[in-house]
Amino acid sequence: MDLEFLHKLIIPAQTKIAMLIMDGLGGLPQEPGGKTELETANAPNLDALAAQSALGLTIPVGPGITPGSGPGHLAIFGYDPIEYAIGRGALEALGVEFELGPEDVAARGNFCSLDVDGLITDRRAGRIPTEVGEALVQRLRTIHIEDVEFFIEPVKEHRFAFIMRGPGLGDALTETDPLKTGVPAQPVYALNPDSERAACMVNTFIEQANSLLADQQPANGVLLRGFARLPKLPTYPYLFGLRAAAIAVNGMYRGVARLLGMEVLEVGGKSIPDEFACLENHWQDYDFFYLHVKQTDTAGEKGDFSGKVQVIEEVDGLLPRLLRLQPDVVIVSGDHSSPAALKAHSWHPVPTLLYSRFVRADGIGEFGERACARGSLGVLPAKDIIPIALANAGRITKYGA
Amino acid sequence: MDLEFLHKLIIPAQTKIAMLIMDGLGGLPQEPGGKTELETANAPNLDALAAQSALGLTIPVGPGITPGSGPGHLAIFGYDPIEYAIGRGALEALGVEFELGPEDVAARGNFCSLDVDGLITDRRAGRIPTEVGEALVQRLRTIHIEDVEFFIEPVKEHRFAFIMRGPGLGDALTETDPLKTGVPAQPVYALNPDSERAACMVNTFIEQANSLLADQQPANGVLLRGFARLPKLPTYPYLFGLRAAAIAVNGMYRGVARLLGMEVLEVGGKSIPDEFACLENHWQDYDFFYLHVKQTDTAGEKGDFSGKVQVIEEVDGLLPRLLRLQPDVVIVSGDHSSPAALKAHSWHPVPTLLYSRFVRADGIGEFGERACARGSLGVLPAKDIIPIALANAGRITKYGA
Repeated sequence: MDLEFLHKLIIPAQTKIAMLIMDGLGGLPQEPGGKTELETANAPNLDALAAQSALGLTIPVGPGITPGSGPGHLAIFGYDPIEYAIGRGALEALGVEFELGPEDVAARGNFCSLDVDGLITDRRAGRIPTEVGEALVQRLRTIHIEDVEFFIEPVKEHRFAFIMRGPGLGDALTETDPLKTGVPAQPVYALNPDSERAACMVNTFIEQANSLLADQQPANGVLLRGFARLPKLPTYPYLFGLRAAAIAVNGMYRGVARLLGMEVLEVGGKSIPDEFACLENHWQDYDFFYLHVKQTDTAGEKGDFSGKVQVIEEVDGLLPRLLRLQPDVVIVSGDHSSPAALKAHSWHPVPTLLYSRFVRADGIGEFGERACARGSLGVLPAKDIIPIALANAGRITKYGA
Repeated sequence: MDLEFLHKLIIPAQTKIAMLIMDGLGGLPQEPGGKTELETANAPNLDALAAQSALGLTIPVGPGITPGSGPGHLAIFGYDPIEYAIGRGALEALGVEFELGPEDVAARGNFCSLDVDGLITDRRAGRIPTEVGEALVQRLRTIHIEDVEFFIEPVKEHRFAFIMRGPGLGDALTETDPLKTGVPAQPVYALNPDSERAACMVNTFIEQANSLLADQQPANGVLLRGFARLPKLPTYPYLFGLRAAAIAVNGMYRGVARLLGMEVLEVGGKSIPDEFACLENHWQDYDFFYLHVKQTDTAGEKGDFSGKVQVIEEVDGLLPRLLRLQPDVVIVSGDHSSPAALKAHSWHPVPTLLYSRFVRADGIGEFGERACARGSLGVLPAKDIIPIALANAGRITKYGA
């Protein structure tokens, strides 16, 4: 079922949908036969909501596929993450909330260390402090070539976002980063004729950048990879007729939400209660709310099982604030799994709960991986959750007579 | 898996498949935590059959999509209802069992009320009695334009089916019905060059129709919408090698079955027992039987929870008559859900049971929405049921060596 098919069936309604995403929610037991992070958490509010909900396990990208944050989020937002891929460079620019134009070509940049022969000795320039990286970025910002503008945005440590704006720039480009040391950086090649000018501009930029950095140690060179334009993504207001708001602290999630036409709200702090306060303050103004909790993923990636349990318990304690707003539809899920046992994102399906007055509730009074495996949503693509939510919100009309 | 792939694996067998469809079978509880219509029904025969069957929940069109009767039926018959859409006009003509030719263009017609300035005052002409509509249809049947024939078939009250037959008629046409009052009917426009002659014919027809009706009150005008030819659908005998029979009382279901190459049997009455008698009388003559029970949907759409329960109980009481015929495969399902709580078709998955000697029975001795959610068929597209039934009937050979 493609998005344009769904779009044609959308009708207006006075209903509100709240989507609570705990990043990397899905987990694994610490030992065989044990409980996952979510199953371990003492979460009476989530359990009570589960009893009135339909449960299932969502697959963000495909069976066995571990999603990055970009594809994981596109999927929970209803987009096929294989069809609508966001290139690495574009994602990096979104992450620093750079307002990418439709023709801009972005890349992920690294400061690196080069020896006297120009061979790479450290691809990350010894992970220079963020302040050092920021100062070096200032130097790169002095570069202008012909009618092309370059925007360089610091990210963290040795990383920066690189954006190129000008006429006739394609994004079918090879990478300069050889992904190993002891060899020189590669020149960029165009992979189609439309990208030849862009290749030439990038190579000239790198030449000038390396000369501007020549007196620096250890960050005396740059590497660029993941050249990409923004994909053309139909937006929430267009596709679903939703005034959508995003509540997230981290840049990348804010950037992806903005790309989909969501209003990205200012959160008055970085804590989870700050995000719930933001939700309350804007409840009247939108039809759809995406609230993103990053801390579950952070704990999972650190291998901090009990830390992840604590974050889930904190969210559980805040859930009544969301429910008091009386949303018509509530989704609680994750963008992927990040089991503490693996210290990384993983391919495991994601526990998902969908509540509305019109849902056929499973009566399973527990929100956990194995509880969700018994739910009536079954094991389903994550992108199917949004259409089901829209149906429960009275926002899809009948197909055919 | 497309139908041509399946077709190539079909082998003959001396087996019989019975598909019992309770229209709008899926339901919802009347109050949170309660039972659905099907769960409420005292249905010992269905429960006993469920114990020997594989259970599941079927999705007719896609997640969150509420199917009309046309798409819902195409899906349970094994066709992707998005790929094989039946236009509204063609469905209306099928509904009155008009034998649509492959090039005929059909539309849904309404008698309407026009004021002296030609503005619509009532799109349904006060829902004139069916007999009045039938008399007015006679007037329209006098119209002939050039080499084009017009067939007008009364449906009910102010509604009629409009069919146009002649050379060079396309169906890419806009609608005349503006879907509101206080404005004139729209002229028809062709949406491609192949449909220009058809647009001209329709506009001339409407002019002549309105002048023939000028002295009538309140039905002094006509509106036409949903122009469509029949889709090209591969038939049951071709696709599956099945001699298929349809047992249904209502025109639309009979029409769709005929379109798929099923033999539409004459039922000696309008009751459900009459339909089971018809099944018994023709048991020797066909390989596949579709038996359609409309009353579940009618009760659901009325919001009559207990009425729907009663219909299910009536069907349950008749089920032994079907089972005594010893079908090799039995499917019990619906074409969509129609919960009494919503008084309408809905998007909820449909409880489905598949029995055969070779099925891997779930041993769940209950036929209901939540029982089916635990079944081994899982949550699956409705169109996947027919291939599973054919396999259980020994009618699909191995794929590959």
